[in-house]
Amino acid sequence: MSIITAVETFDVRFPTSKHLDGSDAMNADPDYSAAYLRIITDAADGHEGHGFVFTIGRGNDVETAAINALKGHVIGRNTEELLDDMGATWRLFVHDSQLRWLGPEKGVMHMAIGAVVNALWDLKAKRAGLPLWQLLGRMTPEELVNLIDFRYLTDALTPEEALEIFRKAEPGRRQREEELLTVGYPAYTTTPGWLGYSDEKLARLCREAVKDGFQQIKLKVGGDLEDDRRRLKIARETVGPDIRIAVDANQRWDVAEAISWMKELAEFDVAWIEEPTSPDDVLGHAAISRGVAPIPVATGEHVQNRVIFKQMLQADALQVLQIDAARVAGVNENIAILLLAAKFNVPVCPHAGGVGLCEAVQHLSMFDFVAVSGTLERRMIEFVDHLHEHFITPIDVRQGRYWPPLAQGAGAEMHLASLQEFSYPGGPAWMPETVAIAG
Amino acid sequence: MSIITAVETFDVRFPTSKHLDGSDAMNADPDYSAAYLRIITDAADGHEGHGFVFTIGRGNDVETAAINALKGHVIGRNTEELLDDMGATWRLFVHDSQLRWLGPEKGVMHMAIGAVVNALWDLKAKRAGLPLWQLLGRMTPEELVNLIDFRYLTDALTPEEALEIFRKAEPGRRQREEELLTVGYPAYTTTPGWLGYSDEKLARLCREAVKDGFQQIKLKVGGDLEDDRRRLKIARETVGPDIRIAVDANQRWDVAEAISWMKELAEFDVAWIEEPTSPDDVLGHAAISRGVAPIPVATGEHVQNRVIFKQMLQADALQVLQIDAARVAGVNENIAILLLAAKFNVPVCPHAGGVGLCEAVQHLSMFDFVAVSGTLERRMIEFVDHLHEHFITPIDVRQGRYWPPLAQGAGAEMHLASLQEFSYPGGPAWMPETVAIAG
Repeated sequence: MSIITAVETFDVRFPTSKHLDGSDAMNADPDYSAAYLRIITDAADGHEGHGFVFTIGRGNDVETAAINALKGHVIGRNTEELLDDMGATWRLFVHDSQLRWLGPEKGVMHMAIGAVVNALWDLKAKRAGLPLWQLLGRMTPEELVNLIDFRYLTDALTPEEALEIFRKAEPGRRQREEELLTVGYPAYTTTPGWLGYSDEKLARLCREAVKDGFQQIKLKVGGDLEDDRRRLKIARETVGPDIRIAVDANQRWDVAEAISWMKELAEFDVAWIEEPTSPDDVLGHAAISRGVAPIPVATGEHVQNRVIFKQMLQADALQVLQIDAARVAGVNENIAILLLAAKFNVPVCPHAGGVGLCEAVQHLSMFDFVAVSGTLERRMIEFVDHLHEHFITPIDVRQGRYWPPLAQGAGAEMHLASLQEFSYPGGPAWMPETVAIAG
Repeated sequence: MSIITAVETFDVRFPTSKHLDGSDAMNADPDYSAAYLRIITDAADGHEGHGFVFTIGRGNDVETAAINALKGHVIGRNTEELLDDMGATWRLFVHDSQLRWLGPEKGVMHMAIGAVVNALWDLKAKRAGLPLWQLLGRMTPEELVNLIDFRYLTDALTPEEALEIFRKAEPGRRQREEELLTVGYPAYTTTPGWLGYSDEKLARLCREAVKDGFQQIKLKVGGDLEDDRRRLKIARETVGPDIRIAVDANQRWDVAEAISWMKELAEFDVAWIEEPTSPDDVLGHAAISRGVAPIPVATGEHVQNRVIFKQMLQADALQVLQIDAARVAGVNENIAILLLAAKFNVPVCPHAGGVGLCEAVQHLSMFDFVAVSGTLERRMIEFVDHLHEHFITPIDVRQGRYWPPLAQGAGAEMHLASLQEFSYPGGPAWMPETVAIAG
């Protein structure tokens, strides 16, 4: 038996706005950041659990405060009790009768819960000596169903249906684990497409993406229609007709504008339109889906929880579902969302990029392939080439594919040196002279 | 010209859990709390702007941190510039490209924005020497339209339609102001109905409610069906057939359960079923509305923003719309919601209670009557008899009606002595010996 003795939090920010990495129609100048925690126990194995919320700068302190507000549920607790019943542990946080008022199940508090839940999964996977995707992919269907809170889901997905989905995928699990190790998991890249980049940089990065083996790229749109047409033309001419090009409006439009704008971009053979409008607008996405068909609508990086995803699927409001490792309440809720997607036969193509999102979300997609959907068809994980060097186990993306992580844990552990260097506002990276030089 | 020189924040909590005031099927033991701020300028008039987020205890520190994260948009700014264009000021906060990631427009950060926006409205009303409801009710239709951000709304409500609603109500404004002063605004009371109360206390409070002139009471349900039936029977027998009885499940049910449970309560002639399920579930509320008709479905105290309200109206998911003064991003967003309700011809019956919610929201309902819907029909404001003594201008509820506040400002200003006494965790009310005595 061991006890959780400490939860340390870090407000870590990278001055990415200096180079307009990550710039799009809504996010002009992000400083990619992480409200980060590590969970420490008194166990002899020395394992720690690490997790984070991704933010884009201001407000990272608020997320850190939210993680701190959860410490009372963790510090002093029996580690095994928490890790052995992760379904109950999830409910402990999400159903806190007072904290619930701050959501419920959305925004700052829900993301903080996600970070703590994911840190506990990291610890659990390290103790098992397995990468998270394998740990999950080897749990029994019954154990997996027990992770999920079906409250508010039963009109779309019952525990019995979830069990059936897991059981149906069970026979091929071992074979698909092998397949992943042999062929990897498909990736697509957003690296070329940020709005702040010049046409020359766009074309160069498009060429590199093709050379690197990616079958799909993604461009940011929604700032200016003529700019979008010019940039899509450059991209299409550069990559040729066989590489898919998705576009991403980052919530810039209202319903009618989304439909009319996309009509102007359709000639460039668009693979999907991502985040055309508010992530809260189920009915709006459904109207846009009807209006831009056959172009699929993709969304999810800002979808707050499983209740909105449920409705998006019920209303045929999205045709590509984009989970995010650090938006909802962690691994448990993302498994519920993977099940909903499987039930409605909608492919999951995770949002990634930022800080550590690629490292974290790959485990969920690989688990999905092994134990839920059982297919790679129409599936791929976003790849952005940012900030991976700060992670102890950075992603391995080659030939346009994610190669399965084999290190134990959930993948989100950063180097202590990075946590210190980019600590905000006191770290060396944020000293006045350093920021001025970076600029 | 003046400058905003300081924004002070307070974490204020009242140990209400000691008496099970406010207990319902989801909120077992709330400590009613406020993340409170006051805005100070260097103007000679000495006016301050006060505002708050209501919470139920834990997490009030997180809300306070979120308000602090907004200080950079306020301190050092020209006061008149902010107050003269409150539409632009609202967008300044809500469209902050980095803070937006924490929502967007929901949860902790959005509520914090609401508190700051409301504090600025308080300051603006004090400077005008008017209560907020009169300040708003005397602005021109064009000025009112300029307060609203129509992003994500235009598929349901355009600026032109909003202008038309305001213009249509304009001729009768003065007369309706007079009417309010003469007859007040209808109220209903939730005081009798908390789950934690004994049957005897329930009956006694029901009798008192009738004696006090209320035409509607509300009971909490959703904990246990037999308890609900027993309590409803007591309430109905006590108040007689002419007093309306609404019930409130505080999000306890899934869709099917809501419908079947309500069938068991229908015989008691229920005025509405409030919060039957997740406040995020537009399609769920629509299904419940169809399933329990003709009982109206009411919701809103946890509806995160205008985008969800828009869909609730589009889908006929609610028949009673419950705004809350401290959930969305303040006065501006609530005006947008009042307009949506008017467009869809749905009555607005605000959520109140907690700390200061009655004081704040009455201004919005009275403004709605004067300048938006123009009617009191099917409208009433919730009343709960808690904690009003801490406010400089407490509500005046008599004969089952809210009597219009005439003091300048938005009504949310607390006594400094209360802010100090209930300051958490350092205030006298939270000293160990005090809490023990209160228990």
